[in-house]
Amino acid sequence: MGTSVALQISGRNKLRGRVINITPGIVTAEVEIDIGNGNRITGVITKNSLEEMQIQTGEEITALIKATSVMFMKE
Amino acid sequence: MGTSVALQISGRNKLRGRVINITPGIVTAEVEIDIGNGNRITGVITKNSLEEMQIQTGEEITALIKATSVMFMKE
Amino acid sequence: MGTSVALQISGRNKLRGRVINITPGIVTAEVEIDIGNGNRITGVITKNSLEEMQIQTGEEITALIKATSVMFMKE
Amino acid sequence: MGTSVALQISGRNKLRGRVINITPGIVTAEVEIDIGNGNRITGVITKNSLEEMQIQTGEEITALIKATSVMFMKE
Amino acid sequence: MGTSVALQISGRNKLRGRVINITPGIVTAEVEIDIGNGNRITGVITKNSLEEMQIQTGEEITALIKATSVMFMKE
Amino acid sequence: MGTSVALQISGRNKLRGRVINITPGIVTAEVEIDIGNGNRITGVITKNSLEEMQIQTGEEITALIKATSVMFMKE
Repeated sequence: MGTSVALQISGRNKLRGRVINITPGIVTAEVEIDIGNGNRITGVITKNSLEEMQIQTGEEITALIKATSVMFMKE
Repeated sequence: MGTSVALQISGRNKLRGRVINITPGIVTAEVEIDIGNGNRITGVITKNSLEEMQIQTGEEITALIKATSVMFMKE
Repeated sequence: MGTSVALQISGRNKLRGRVINITPGIVTAEVEIDIGNGNRITGVITKNSLEEMQIQTGEEITALIKATSVMFMKE
Repeated sequence: MGTSVALQISGRNKLRGRVINITPGIVTAEVEIDIGNGNRITGVITKNSLEEMQIQTGEEITALIKATSVMFMKE
Repeated sequence: MGTSVALQISGRNKLRGRVINITPGIVTAEVEIDIGNGNRITGVITKNSLEEMQIQTGEEITALIKATSVMFMKE
Repeated sequence: MGTSVALQISGRNKLRGRVINITPGIVTAEVEIDIGNGNRITGVITKNSLEEMQIQTGEEITALIKATSVMFMKE
């Protein structure tokens, strides 16, 4: 029987969604996911990461965002 | 009649939610919002911003996240 | 008469200036503004933001920088 | 037999080291690791992450750094 | 005669100003500088950096900001 | 005799290494250095910085990373 070892990451925000858009550039690439409830997350990662992870439209991935990168707005 | 001038911000990710937790420190403060669909966003801002914006538990605010701050994970 | 509702943003640094340079790439774009007093601010945003906001050379925009992104140097 | 599913993360820099210093604050906490070769990495994470991950002096953990957060200096 | 070796840093934004406010916390510290022309920059650094650099109110230091950390707003 | 004035930077992580890979794009450029002990650091900077600093494969440069940009992972 296999033992599952969970990986813990200090980055507090993990938002799961379906890839709806990929724009590859030369150095960077833009990936957009739909996390439900009318919300989308757009991220810019390196093109190398995009290719190594073989991210494809339609599959489910998770956005990871460090708490210190989050701002808030209020009307 | 008043004219409404919309403010545009280049930060691509705007996620609206209800404040569920506030932890003030000395320099920084942690704010957690519930954006629905089982997702929460935690942000660390300055305590000065928390006080000037008078952020309070229960009210609706919007998380703002720059696309270059977003990573992706895939199993 | 209209009612003006101010938008508050936790990002502490807002520096107003005139756009002096725009370099569009594929995924990202570089925008440079002159904030006076001999100071310039260069930012890299997504090309999508550049186009949606229709940022143009000569117009006035505001740089927004989160306090946790600022370092200091001293001789 | 169990099946191991590797988690892939777009953050390109993963540096493994031993925890040599922990300074807990109220909202944030500083963690320092020794990655060998005379190099150390200091990170500031939320105190909540520190406690949930039960990070302790002497254990091995991995620093994760997004490529867009890296600058370079040259003499 | 001495030879001056300039240090080059990829971080594109260097804004020189006078320290007008310092708020030390436990892990982090807030430093505010006046860069002239009515502009101020607030940064959050580690308290260790504040102490090692012996940053003091009234002295001149330089804010360093990576271009990928800059957003833009437009009305 | 010359007087050396050390430049202090609040960014806590300085990792010296040899440039092993450079990928220039239009706006950004990826630079990879080998810091020894089997560790590599990849950074994305502006293409303008790459050119002004004349970074070349084989030379030694230093990666600079702010502590608030560092996350930690634990198995």
